[in-house]
Amino acid sequence: MKQSLTFIPTLREAPKEAEIASHKLLLRAGFIKQIAAGVYTYLPLGLRVLRKIESIIREELEAIGCSELLMPAMQPAELWKESGRWDDYGQTMMRMKDRHDRDFALGPTHEEVITYVIRDYLNSYKKMPLALYQIQTKFRDELRPRFGLMRGREFVMKDAYSFHTNEESLDEWYQNFKQAYINIFDRCKLEFRMVDADNGDMGGSESTEFMVLNKIGEDTIVYSDSSDFASNIEVHNLEEGAKSPDGNGTIKHAKGIEVGHVFKLGAKYSEKMNAMFINENQKRHPVLMGCYGIGVSRVMMAIIEQYNDENGIVWPKELAPFDVHLICIDPRKDEQSQAAEKLYNEFMKNKIDVLYDDRRERPGVKFSDADLIGIPVRITVGRGIKDGKVEVKYRNRDEVIEVDIDEVKNNL
Amino acid sequence: MKQSLTFIPTLREAPKEAEIASHKLLLRAGFIKQIAAGVYTYLPLGLRVLRKIESIIREELEAIGCSELLMPAMQPAELWKESGRWDDYGQTMMRMKDRHDRDFALGPTHEEVITYVIRDYLNSYKKMPLALYQIQTKFRDELRPRFGLMRGREFVMKDAYSFHTNEESLDEWYQNFKQAYINIFDRCKLEFRMVDADNGDMGGSESTEFMVLNKIGEDTIVYSDSSDFASNIEVHNLEEGAKSPDGNGTIKHAKGIEVGHVFKLGAKYSEKMNAMFINENQKRHPVLMGCYGIGVSRVMMAIIEQYNDENGIVWPKELAPFDVHLICIDPRKDEQSQAAEKLYNEFMKNKIDVLYDDRRERPGVKFSDADLIGIPVRITVGRGIKDGKVEVKYRNRDEVIEVDIDEVKNNL
Repeated sequence: MKQSLTFIPTLREAPKEAEIASHKLLLRAGFIKQIAAGVYTYLPLGLRVLRKIESIIREELEAIGCSELLMPAMQPAELWKESGRWDDYGQTMMRMKDRHDRDFALGPTHEEVITYVIRDYLNSYKKMPLALYQIQTKFRDELRPRFGLMRGREFVMKDAYSFHTNEESLDEWYQNFKQAYINIFDRCKLEFRMVDADNGDMGGSESTEFMVLNKIGEDTIVYSDSSDFASNIEVHNLEEGAKSPDGNGTIKHAKGIEVGHVFKLGAKYSEKMNAMFINENQKRHPVLMGCYGIGVSRVMMAIIEQYNDENGIVWPKELAPFDVHLICIDPRKDEQSQAAEKLYNEFMKNKIDVLYDDRRERPGVKFSDADLIGIPVRITVGRGIKDGKVEVKYRNRDEVIEVDIDEVKNNL
Repeated sequence: MKQSLTFIPTLREAPKEAEIASHKLLLRAGFIKQIAAGVYTYLPLGLRVLRKIESIIREELEAIGCSELLMPAMQPAELWKESGRWDDYGQTMMRMKDRHDRDFALGPTHEEVITYVIRDYLNSYKKMPLALYQIQTKFRDELRPRFGLMRGREFVMKDAYSFHTNEESLDEWYQNFKQAYINIFDRCKLEFRMVDADNGDMGGSESTEFMVLNKIGEDTIVYSDSSDFASNIEVHNLEEGAKSPDGNGTIKHAKGIEVGHVFKLGAKYSEKMNAMFINENQKRHPVLMGCYGIGVSRVMMAIIEQYNDENGIVWPKELAPFDVHLICIDPRKDEQSQAAEKLYNEFMKNKIDVLYDDRRERPGVKFSDADLIGIPVRITVGRGIKDGKVEVKYRNRDEVIEVDIDEVKNNL
């Protein structure tokens, strides 16, 4: 993509409202733009990263046999009245009326809709297990939206739901999803920990949160310094120094960003909403359910919190908006612009995603924008092109190396 | 994808509310499910087709230098008050208040938001032309939602916006977009016609609609039987028999489904919302704009209107939810299930998208579901497998051919 033709509005200073590194950098590097409190536009660079995270999620969920669908944001109040949550959900649920004065929620989550979608179909044990997911826009009227995409009012979430005839099957898929989540967050290069969690308003019998360890996290994790024991402090209120409940080691505290949460819902929604199936013995039973969420836009921020330096973002390869940032120092010089253009076309032909800075800007502006944006490899076509040389710099290293233009593909 | 593990709730009869072929078939073949009037869930098959249409759109728009972004559905009333459309838009705009009693629109379109997004940045002639697009969910509270996805209240739209310093540049990009639209609708295998259209509420100086010719269309097109002249009857109210205004041929009438609409907006929004740039002579001018829409979910219905028979949908290859429908007649017979499984894995390895009917259902059910769903190639593993034979049938032909299982890849 040519930088002169796209929209990357970098800023020297972050707007005042941004308090944490990831929020400042997303705004300064031109990845997002605020439209209202907790409501953002994903600009071209931000959207590219979002799509990369979404692809990783899709691959890992399809690998365990999960199928994608897409449910609407507009949800009739009747469904929420069936589950009892129309009254319980409170002010966090955005509500509206249509022109016929009918009540709708703007979906903060989709347990009610998915139960409605499957309940006519899942009438027999033969049709389970079944697991469905979507990557979709959610609405929650947070009292204090903050930290950019971390706690937004309109945000992208992956939510999945599984359906079972018995506890063993629910548990098997619950474990499958946990493993898929481990794969997803590993591929997103996040330092995370699985912790015991509270089911809260969702109901059900068991839940696990996936927490990225970071000082800006809003949750407190209590964990053992010498075993796998880890829990949200809401579940095990243990003090630092205390012994770990599993007998191994002592308790430490850490802050965590919740990026994923899986729940065994059991029969809570299916009983209230009459999602019943006939089992092998011709008896009616409520379908057992699990639900599994990932805050997709929040994952993007957690990655940046972990990968940045004083000059900008330092994207891990798999998440970067582009593979290569190609810079032409002076596009008015034919030898430079022709060589850069040639490299650009070669990269495109070889399916290497390249952002090509063909702008008539000072080199200093181009380099500081490149550092801010954080693409892993920067290739600069400048004066050295007279001798057939270009400069290669990796965003996560200091040194600049000079290579023959024909050798550059070996340095990606 | 294994059919036993996914969610394709086919129906023998279409629900009563479905009046037209595409709506009946989308419901019967398990592509969509209604949640409320004009509000649908895209089930796995429907979503796969939607994604194929979206990919075609992305490829053609990126080819002309358009960058993707993603704007929110929640739009603060203040922006719509700047343009004057908060009062003008009427009941079709869905509105809500947040917990602080602030007014929001659920975006029926995004001229206001995009103008806000770019107006600080596009302060110089050097930064134009610029073209941005999104594929996003729109909300319109239609008085009479009908025909399924044809006139929905929550629907997927591609909207693009271009920004220019002068009329020549706007016209050049307007033509680029028209050509991209021709490519898109050609690749969607639609019989369409470009017609002169009314700018209506959008304002501006020129607009063209892309109409799929079909008797269920809500618009009337007047066209010449022997030239390119074609217009929405709202622009040229001409009777059949009348002479064509360009002097060539006589006027015919036809019904059309509007799948795309391009507008030259000019300075309408930039003047009202203060999107100004400094030109080469240091003078301030309003940015000139074009806007370009495609009803993505509506395109899906238009395709089905054109490609169906008495047994179901007949997908063109590029739009089909899968490339191949693999049917195992009796999965309890080892020789059949092993051969089918082997083919399934080979297809997957070769990136051929395959829906594998491994269900324990009667052959008649499997064949009628396959016809209903409409995947272009059906491969059946049945008794013939004893002699190493499988059956191949193309959805758009009658004959069934028997081929060696090792030769099957040559018949796709």
